Amino acid sequence: MEEKGIIRIAVMGYGNLGKGIECAVRQNDDMELVGVFTRRNPEEVKTLWGTPVYPAQAVWDKKEDIDVLILCGGSASDLPQQTPEYARDFNVVDSFDTHARIPEHFANVERAAAAGGKVAIISAGWDPGLFSLNRLYAGAILREGSDYTFWGRGVSQGHSDAIRRIPGVRDARQYTVPIEAALEAVRRGEEPVLTAGQKHTRECFVVAEEGADRTRIEREIKSMPNYFADYETTVHFITEEELQRNHGGIPHGGFVLRTGKTGKEGEHSHRIEYSLKLDSNPEFTACVLTACARAAYRMNKEGMKGCKTMFDVAPAYLSPMTAEELRNTLL
Amino acid sequence: MEEKGIIRIAVMGYGNLGKGIECAVRQNDDMELVGVFTRRNPEEVKTLWGTPVYPAQAVWDKKEDIDVLILCGGSASDLPQQTPEYARDFNVVDSFDTHARIPEHFANVERAAAAGGKVAIISAGWDPGLFSLNRLYAGAILREGSDYTFWGRGVSQGHSDAIRRIPGVRDARQYTVPIEAALEAVRRGEEPVLTAGQKHTRECFVVAEEGADRTRIEREIKSMPNYFADYETTVHFITEEELQRNHGGIPHGGFVLRTGKTGKEGEHSHRIEYSLKLDSNPEFTACVLTACARAAYRMNKEGMKGCKTMFDVAPAYLSPMTAEELRNTLL
Repeated sequence: MEEKGIIRIAVMGYGNLGKGIECAVRQNDDMELVGVFTRRNPEEVKTLWGTPVYPAQAVWDKKEDIDVLILCGGSASDLPQQTPEYARDFNVVDSFDTHARIPEHFANVERAAAAGGKVAIISAGWDPGLFSLNRLYAGAILREGSDYTFWGRGVSQGHSDAIRRIPGVRDARQYTVPIEAALEAVRRGEEPVLTAGQKHTRECFVVAEEGADRTRIEREIKSMPNYFADYETTVHFITEEELQRNHGGIPHGGFVLRTGKTGKEGEHSHRIEYSLKLDSNPEFTACVLTACARAAYRMNKEGMKGCKTMFDVAPAYLSPMTAEELRNTLL
Repeated sequence: MEEKGIIRIAVMGYGNLGKGIECAVRQNDDMELVGVFTRRNPEEVKTLWGTPVYPAQAVWDKKEDIDVLILCGGSASDLPQQTPEYARDFNVVDSFDTHARIPEHFANVERAAAAGGKVAIISAGWDPGLFSLNRLYAGAILREGSDYTFWGRGVSQGHSDAIRRIPGVRDARQYTVPIEAALEAVRRGEEPVLTAGQKHTRECFVVAEEGADRTRIEREIKSMPNYFADYETTVHFITEEELQRNHGGIPHGGFVLRTGKTGKEGEHSHRIEYSLKLDSNPEFTACVLTACARAAYRMNKEGMKGCKTMFDVAPAYLSPMTAEELRNTLL
């Protein structure tokens, strides 16, 4: 873990997450970003600091110049195909977040990475990722207790998209908001049983088309199964200008808590709480992926291979410090 | 990491921490506590659930019956000697917490464990331990930012002992208390520069001997260098009975925060916060050591050896779940 060389990073896909990687790599002096690869016309992609842009298929020719390829596509259709495709020839990191399909994705990536002798770290980010780690640590330590994850206050892209699909809606932004009283009951160690709707409310800011029936739009939002029907949902109609001015960011965050008991008769209560408050969800996620890229590179250098999650990554691999520096300064 | 056998744990030293291990092992059905080893007369040591008690030197005869030996002595004089002594023949876990001497302790334990082909995890617990891990993760992710650790509200054994050494003091309990305003300034992302005394106050509950000069005792406490002089300190004189009734517990806890910036111009702020609220410091620490014992056992089974800290332990090793269960349920 004492490797101090420059790690050559490349990015596949240049949306918000790819831009975040470009920012994050600049904050790490043991890394450089050698290129951005895109399925768009490279001439139409403008990077923040002039990182060179290449067509996606050119990545194969640059294999020898890339230590880790960070895959910045979406979980719905990009990553299930891309991560197994690239994991045979590159150390890769992705942020695959479709929880139900993780076992399948893991199996596909494992086959490719093991065959190619590469390390692939999947489902990195904050949830899955840092929140998962905290669920693991807390559960391994407080064996008798209850786990809680609250999300927000933050923008849910999926819920915003769902609102946009309603006829008469021009644009929308949906915030997931944790219910303070539920959070407090958990903090007091009451171990309440809570549904997602008892932990969160949903706040929607909607730009309607001119002349659209707002009452119908509001009703359609509030009755939408899975997305809104089980939650206390509020709908605010605003102008396009207000949406741009007040809701242009992509903040997010949340809380992971575990409370539990120890002692001869379970007489002692304990609480472990982890929280994130993020101005930019994609930029923060990019920071996590970048740290994981360092880990993938080092683990592969040590001869490891195959598909990993953050559960399998010894924390020291993520930090630019040497093991000795870590023990001297952070332990 | 798919090992599901019963892990045979033994404890060296049976104070509060050793009792905590006895409690913790009962909460883990993949473990059993095979014995408690003590330098006291074994007949005078009564375990909570009748765990057999043996003289310390008998541990060598029971080598084949012990998978991991958890060392529950103190950092001042026990562990610097014991951990290297046992790490050659046993997988061991300790909670060595004298920060300045960790490099020296690590080197001594590394020599022994590497020679014996065993795994030793040192400095486990919550600080050093879980707090250290959070400093590492947060710093590896938010590369440009500031770190803060606040301790408390909780009992500091070292500060309580320091008060007890003052003539005229019969007993004392000292609480370290985080300053809420400082914590809030950190949470707002102001990145203030804070001394320990600007982050904490010290609250002392003192039982004075009959006829002792309370004014002098209070003055001596408040002017004690390193311990109290640099802190806002309050002193309450109470009766022995009040001390037993209201201050008999050993609660502790604290906060680890990192705030930092990302984006093209550092325009986005982020906050990572981790906190613990513990009714019983030794019982919680024991839970961490017990999870580390599982990791030490599994890592050694996989052929690893040498001295480790929690920085070097892939999180999955700590949990009783298999890698597959972890991915399916916690990721």
